Amino acid sequence: MDAGERIEQALELAVGRAEAENGPPQLAAAIRHAVFSGGARVRPRLTLAVAEACGGDEPAIADAAAAAIEMLHCASLVHDDLPCFDNADTRRGRPSVHALYGAPLALLAGDALIVMAFETLGRSASGAPQRLVPLIATVTRGVGAPFGIVAGQAWESEPNPPPEQYRCAKTGALFVAATMSGALASGGDPAPWRSLGHRLGEAYQVADDLLDAVSTKDEGGKPVGQDVALGRPNAVAELGIAGAVERLEMLVESAISAIPSCPGENELRELVRMQAVRLAPKRLLRCAA
Amino acid sequence: MDAGERIEQALELAVGRAEAENGPPQLAAAIRHAVFSGGARVRPRLTLAVAEACGGDEPAIADAAAAAIEMLHCASLVHDDLPCFDNADTRRGRPSVHALYGAPLALLAGDALIVMAFETLGRSASGAPQRLVPLIATVTRGVGAPFGIVAGQAWESEPNPPPEQYRCAKTGALFVAATMSGALASGGDPAPWRSLGHRLGEAYQVADDLLDAVSTKDEGGKPVGQDVALGRPNAVAELGIAGAVERLEMLVESAISAIPSCPGENELRELVRMQAVRLAPKRLLRCAA
Repeated sequence: MDAGERIEQALELAVGRAEAENGPPQLAAAIRHAVFSGGARVRPRLTLAVAEACGGDEPAIADAAAAAIEMLHCASLVHDDLPCFDNADTRRGRPSVHALYGAPLALLAGDALIVMAFETLGRSASGAPQRLVPLIATVTRGVGAPFGIVAGQAWESEPNPPPEQYRCAKTGALFVAATMSGALASGGDPAPWRSLGHRLGEAYQVADDLLDAVSTKDEGGKPVGQDVALGRPNAVAELGIAGAVERLEMLVESAISAIPSCPGENELRELVRMQAVRLAPKRLLRCAA
Repeated sequence: MDAGERIEQALELAVGRAEAENGPPQLAAAIRHAVFSGGARVRPRLTLAVAEACGGDEPAIADAAAAAIEMLHCASLVHDDLPCFDNADTRRGRPSVHALYGAPLALLAGDALIVMAFETLGRSASGAPQRLVPLIATVTRGVGAPFGIVAGQAWESEPNPPPEQYRCAKTGALFVAATMSGALASGGDPAPWRSLGHRLGEAYQVADDLLDAVSTKDEGGKPVGQDVALGRPNAVAELGIAGAVERLEMLVESAISAIPSCPGENELRELVRMQAVRLAPKRLLRCAA
């Protein structure tokens, strides 16, 4: 089974558990819509790639870590789209969860996804419970307060968020959790993998800023110009489009150079390069070609 | 240290970690407000009492389980108070989190508290990681989809929620998690403790329905008459006030009789009885006296 299939299967297993016949049906449908809406699965692919690079001796834990990271990402998207944040009716070209199911069920679907992420991690580790302790520490650090993606979103409620801390928390934190949890799932040392996650997260944020600045709604699948409209820190606002493209390229190269020497190193470089092409707004790539 | 002090100390430790100097300050303040607002700590007291009854050999895990259960409870209150649900500006006689910090930070504080609950559980179990697997399974079942308090709240978005499933999920699930996680924290068998949690949860829901129906805003500390206004299933609507009081008394007695034979059994009975007195709306107690 390839990495993509492993991720979808692990997510299907988790979402399926929320669909018990005697549970609330619309919540289950909202969770399914949040998870299976055409995401690129960038973060869980990283988790699995790092887990393989570290030996891949416990594929069930690696799959669970990958699925947990993706569910936490999906939860953050559902909550970010809500009327009290971006008020986005579309996401990846489809209706957002609250547009389809209303704000109450969208909020609850996000909550449920956070819980499901830890349920999934816990279930996977019954044969190797000692791996669960550092995994939970790593994943919670990437998601919660004071340094995870929840904190990143909260910086947007502060008058002058420090750009570096804001950026690290908003996007970098979950990428760091993605790479480090891959190592931990295989019993590896997570420290050498922090830098790769950190730089990719930064690259991803710059790419998102570029997408927000230059793409049409049709291309990005969500309303554009949100950062400027909402007065958020933004790489394009700081550096201009050409400067932001340059920074993106620099960050991708620096991410690639941060890959530790390991088995599967070449495949990992290839994955990062492929994801980088996905990251960049299509129109910029056409200009650059 | 008594149970109340252990709970406050465990919560202080967790909330303190979210208050790092270089994290977003308003999020940290919102989390603190959500956790330290005069709650009765009913659920974590149960967790500690059951942990003691099962031997209490790992007090750090018991404290963490108690704090985790309380943080999840606080998260649910913060989210339930939001404009898209109850739109409650007060809670326990003080401003609700969103009334003070706005809906975005309230939503994020709830998310962060869910994450912090699992962070706290994970941290406590490094010396006994095998206890973490069933603890996470039990806590996630009490909170998430399809049977936990998130599902309970989601039933309110369904046209005809099945009363039994709705009630179990809405309140019972977290009480069951509270008792069972106490047993698991001490390496005990959780199964004999399910029934106590389930019956107390039902009692608590009936008490809440009574409070909602008969108390003044001043007494309950939150806006009253919400269930009727929002068309929710309600024991007073089903049974009338006298019928609901009778049911509450029956449920408390049945909870007491569900306490398994164990060391500390008498203290546990006393705790349940004390909490029951706290549960009942004061005016009804005065009538009954």
